[in-house]
Amino acid sequence: MTKKAKWIWYPGDYEIALFNKCMAKRYERDVLITPFWRMDTHYVTVKFYGDFKLTKRNRITVKVDGTFNIFIEELGYIYDFDGVLDLPAGEYHMQILVNNVGKLPCVYVDGEEIKSSSETFRVTCQDNVFYPAADGKFDDIAVSPNSDVRHEEEVFPVAVKNTEKGVLYDFGKEISARLRLKGCKKGTKFECYYGESLEEVSDEAHCEQLDRFTALNETEETPINKAFRYLFVKADCPYKEINVLSETSEVKNKGFFESDDDTLNKIYEVSVHTLDLCKGDFFLDGAKRDRWAWSGDAYQSFLVNYYSFCDDETVKRTITALKGKEPIKTHINHIMDYTMYWILSLYDYLEYGGDEKFVSGVYESAKGYMDFLLQRRNEDGFLYYITGDWVFIDWAEMDNTGETSFEQILFVQTLRKFAEITRLLNKGDGAYYDETAQKLLDKTIEVFYKDGRFVHGRNNGVLQKKVTRYANMFAILFDLLDEKMTKSVVEKVLLNGDVQKITTPYMRFYEQAALSKIDSGYDIVSEMKDYWGGMLKCGATTFWEAFDPNEKGAEKYAMYGRPFGKSLCHAWGANPIYLIYNCILGIKPSSLGYKSFVCRPKLWMMPNFKCGCPIGNGMIYISYDGKAFDIRSDGGEGVVYVPEGFIAPKTAKKSGEGYVISDGENLVFTR
Amino acid sequence: MTKKAKWIWYPGDYEIALFNKCMAKRYERDVLITPFWRMDTHYVTVKFYGDFKLTKRNRITVKVDGTFNIFIEELGYIYDFDGVLDLPAGEYHMQILVNNVGKLPCVYVDGEEIKSSSETFRVTCQDNVFYPAADGKFDDIAVSPNSDVRHEEEVFPVAVKNTEKGVLYDFGKEISARLRLKGCKKGTKFECYYGESLEEVSDEAHCEQLDRFTALNETEETPINKAFRYLFVKADCPYKEINVLSETSEVKNKGFFESDDDTLNKIYEVSVHTLDLCKGDFFLDGAKRDRWAWSGDAYQSFLVNYYSFCDDETVKRTITALKGKEPIKTHINHIMDYTMYWILSLYDYLEYGGDEKFVSGVYESAKGYMDFLLQRRNEDGFLYYITGDWVFIDWAEMDNTGETSFEQILFVQTLRKFAEITRLLNKGDGAYYDETAQKLLDKTIEVFYKDGRFVHGRNNGVLQKKVTRYANMFAILFDLLDEKMTKSVVEKVLLNGDVQKITTPYMRFYEQAALSKIDSGYDIVSEMKDYWGGMLKCGATTFWEAFDPNEKGAEKYAMYGRPFGKSLCHAWGANPIYLIYNCILGIKPSSLGYKSFVCRPKLWMMPNFKCGCPIGNGMIYISYDGKAFDIRSDGGEGVVYVPEGFIAPKTAKKSGEGYVISDGENLVFTR
Repeated sequence: MTKKAKWIWYPGDYEIALFNKCMAKRYERDVLITPFWRMDTHYVTVKFYGDFKLTKRNRITVKVDGTFNIFIEELGYIYDFDGVLDLPAGEYHMQILVNNVGKLPCVYVDGEEIKSSSETFRVTCQDNVFYPAADGKFDDIAVSPNSDVRHEEEVFPVAVKNTEKGVLYDFGKEISARLRLKGCKKGTKFECYYGESLEEVSDEAHCEQLDRFTALNETEETPINKAFRYLFVKADCPYKEINVLSETSEVKNKGFFESDDDTLNKIYEVSVHTLDLCKGDFFLDGAKRDRWAWSGDAYQSFLVNYYSFCDDETVKRTITALKGKEPIKTHINHIMDYTMYWILSLYDYLEYGGDEKFVSGVYESAKGYMDFLLQRRNEDGFLYYITGDWVFIDWAEMDNTGETSFEQILFVQTLRKFAEITRLLNKGDGAYYDETAQKLLDKTIEVFYKDGRFVHGRNNGVLQKKVTRYANMFAILFDLLDEKMTKSVVEKVLLNGDVQKITTPYMRFYEQAALSKIDSGYDIVSEMKDYWGGMLKCGATTFWEAFDPNEKGAEKYAMYGRPFGKSLCHAWGANPIYLIYNCILGIKPSSLGYKSFVCRPKLWMMPNFKCGCPIGNGMIYISYDGKAFDIRSDGGEGVVYVPEGFIAPKTAKKSGEGYVISDGENLVFTR
Repeated sequence: MTKKAKWIWYPGDYEIALFNKCMAKRYERDVLITPFWRMDTHYVTVKFYGDFKLTKRNRITVKVDGTFNIFIEELGYIYDFDGVLDLPAGEYHMQILVNNVGKLPCVYVDGEEIKSSSETFRVTCQDNVFYPAADGKFDDIAVSPNSDVRHEEEVFPVAVKNTEKGVLYDFGKEISARLRLKGCKKGTKFECYYGESLEEVSDEAHCEQLDRFTALNETEETPINKAFRYLFVKADCPYKEINVLSETSEVKNKGFFESDDDTLNKIYEVSVHTLDLCKGDFFLDGAKRDRWAWSGDAYQSFLVNYYSFCDDETVKRTITALKGKEPIKTHINHIMDYTMYWILSLYDYLEYGGDEKFVSGVYESAKGYMDFLLQRRNEDGFLYYITGDWVFIDWAEMDNTGETSFEQILFVQTLRKFAEITRLLNKGDGAYYDETAQKLLDKTIEVFYKDGRFVHGRNNGVLQKKVTRYANMFAILFDLLDEKMTKSVVEKVLLNGDVQKITTPYMRFYEQAALSKIDSGYDIVSEMKDYWGGMLKCGATTFWEAFDPNEKGAEKYAMYGRPFGKSLCHAWGANPIYLIYNCILGIKPSSLGYKSFVCRPKLWMMPNFKCGCPIGNGMIYISYDGKAFDIRSDGGEGVVYVPEGFIAPKTAKKSGEGYVISDGENLVFTR
């Protein structure tokens, strides 16, 4: 098979250029809101080097996005270039210098014996550093990485209501779509209002998304997708037809989950749909708002993605875009916690994804962020609030000025995981990071661990009295405490209803994940049915940014001081997928790149179910009917730890407390 | 007078964006050649902050280059913005967030009581650092900093020759111009060849500049200026008219020089014309080639400029563009010497220009470059050749690998001047730089000063036998040697015809400047008439990149392996202006910002002359008829040191060996 030529570019710059385009799509009504952090851009002048040998005359096509020249060491500059080079047999050293300020500089070279790709060309931004050129899915000369390629399909409303003022469409569930209006009379004034809820679409003055325009052509298209379930269209003149073009994902959910419990099934289905709508060129926080890549949100999306879409390309794009370019002057998204989640996401990616070359490529930047964190410690070695930084933690009442215990706990884990990354990539022994982590943990316990749990923070040397769940549950999640402390923290905080409750799926996620680590008899399934199921009861067709069951009526749609400010399709709402597979069924990688796995299910809380869970290079299929636990691996070797009372098939090979399952094998445990 | 509103932008980004446009104008025939160093770009997302108070209702116009939003703390986001804000009396805190990947993000705000300018708005690229917004000459809402404004006038040939193949135009001297062809029949094929020399224009296959196109309109214009004296136009169909549109400088030469010596007058006139053609948005090296800003070339152009055009805005633009953005990964233009000239140019600018705020604004970058230099020393403290760097020094036969004495001497001066800059801007005591300079000088003398002069270099511990002029003449120029060593170096190198001669005006400049520092009876005027006059004899209408009197015929136009590769209009050819004013008439600033001056003329080598020399805020006028030396200051106080034998007017006030001349005063010294 002959390989195809590919468009090539400077590593990371496709992501950066795409990020600029993508981040310029958040609108609040007619107001464009681009990110509030520094946006970087592609290198504007880039030189590609390709050395090749032709055994015969080749007709070589060169196409470039940008102004450019071609220099061949053996021939000099190519004058009068008309798109094609006719080169006789021989060795050649080719340089293509491309200049493009507005768009990604990229190149496509195609001859019988030389085809551009990351394997055949090197590239530099002319700073004396050379890399293999980057390539990707673009192998069509007519479709460069700068092309806007849309994947869309027409969707149809489940209900249409004609009113005096216009037409109201209900699509039955949230979609991300744009409109094509056909048969417009020129000059027709259109007003299109979108709503995630019926209340929102009905409130022209306050709905968050709209399109208003005057038709200049017979067919008009709105330029940018909106996220909505309801659409209300007003026109001062009749038009013939409206198509609603919904964005479709190229990468589909690879898993499935069906059970005897309809609510659980619905939670899974809605979670998948939620992440699907929030996933575009990058993992974004929400479909309606912010449509930005936030590192803390993306970190969770990555984890959920590893159990559903396995869209690793989008993981890598998001990591690269969030990283930005040198110099590092602020936290990622300006948020202290988010810089750390970004580092942690690299470790997860090594486990679940496994493209070590990719992580190696961003290692220096990661080290830069580690240095940035280390430089911002105070005399106690604590991270603390510095003006201009944002210590987020969660949307909740709390005082995050001064030193917060949560940020220290997160930093301990970040240091440990970075030490591991350093070793895994053969970049050093990581000892400095491990030692720093240990010192920080000791000091954190010394200062913040009082009366058997962590208090929230310290300001000017004075401990806050307030206790929050964050540091406590993360300390459990990261296995930082001894048995006695763990027990104390679980009792005094995690299972203590008097401690301020969490109202975002974001932090519910970590809370559930932490609780899944302990054998407390805590029932995550019930909790999911209660909290996520609570949103379903409120009519959710995607999961929300925040949910407080106590809020009534349209009050639950309000946030940030705006009546419909809350995002009703928020990526972090999708994390039941992770909770089911990782925390309940206990499916996790046991080697880098998910080449092997473990499965340690907590079946007691589960109804009868069938599911497929994607892993590295394949799937695990499980069915459970209350008696038999049937598991088949289709993608790697694993070890299954079944609960007490289950009997392994006779042929099953033991491995410690578990049973080995090999690729393609089916084991049925019964009781 | 009411101030006008101005377009505002992020400091330095106008220069960076303009630099990108300007650096994409170098063509070799039809081949675009953009720079070989990393080109940076403007910040793509920029936020402007303006706080203001309105005493009454204001109608405020806001215009932006880019997509944007307006947020007013008191009002929130401005929805449905139509270009104008009607704001009642009150206090406002306005934020305008602009996004523009392809062009400079910039803003224009104009109301009766709020007008955008560097005084009224701050700006950030969202890295938590805020600066006053930058502004400049753009105060017309219709002409943003992204506009391409051309200043052109039609010029006419001094001779036209119709040949069988086309029409040959001779403009009498080099110009920088583009063509407008009127009355074209659509489909006409045009071939336009340009030549700095008659030989070049006559050689269609090798001339460096051409335009070939097919007319699509009745009037066709070539897009980019070419530098030429001769033009040859071929068309396969008659056209009606050709206009040759010559670029005109907004800033004109402020000085004048007339003498009894026609050659000297011509040298002055041609020097001015040369610099004029090489000066556009930036100080470029040459009009035909490279049309790039090279720091070493620019450094000289700045100095010449201070005695002619006094175009400080272009100095600042060039300094900013050469600086680039963080991170510093290579030398400026990749050339070790050029990083140092860039630092030195800051000191000169403080002396001659005096906008301390500007130098303060680039100080951190300058410190970054100093760190970069300091990090690249070897164990002896010497700068040395590192793969990827370019040690240029001059176009001449020499071995610049290893350690060269020249780079150390230049570094000594750079360290000293940076210490002075540091003190002048109150950024520290500069002691570290001074101490490092002294150690380096001692070590340089220890290692390279052999037999009474500096040898060229050392490779792997072995001294080169070769002696070149560079380190020797720069040591004199920078006053680094004691009397005995100075005498030795002058005799053994500077006045020694056996030491390899310099064939570029670039290094002739420093050579003459060095010789002017010693009382050797060396006649710079004769040397200028010989070397620069030599070019005039060869028909030069602008001064050249290099000139070797021994080369004959068209051989003298060749360089870089191309028959017409040499630039015949090269900025560094213009330096007789500096030699006349600075080195012969001894006019120099004696305070920062050229608020005062000294004049120490070497009249013995001069013919009778009259001249005007621009200084900081005015002019010095001098005339000399062999007997009387008549000097008038029109722009500052100075001290005049006349040669022995001249008698001061009775009223003249002594100051040491010189005589004080106050602003507006006229002193006539006679003998």
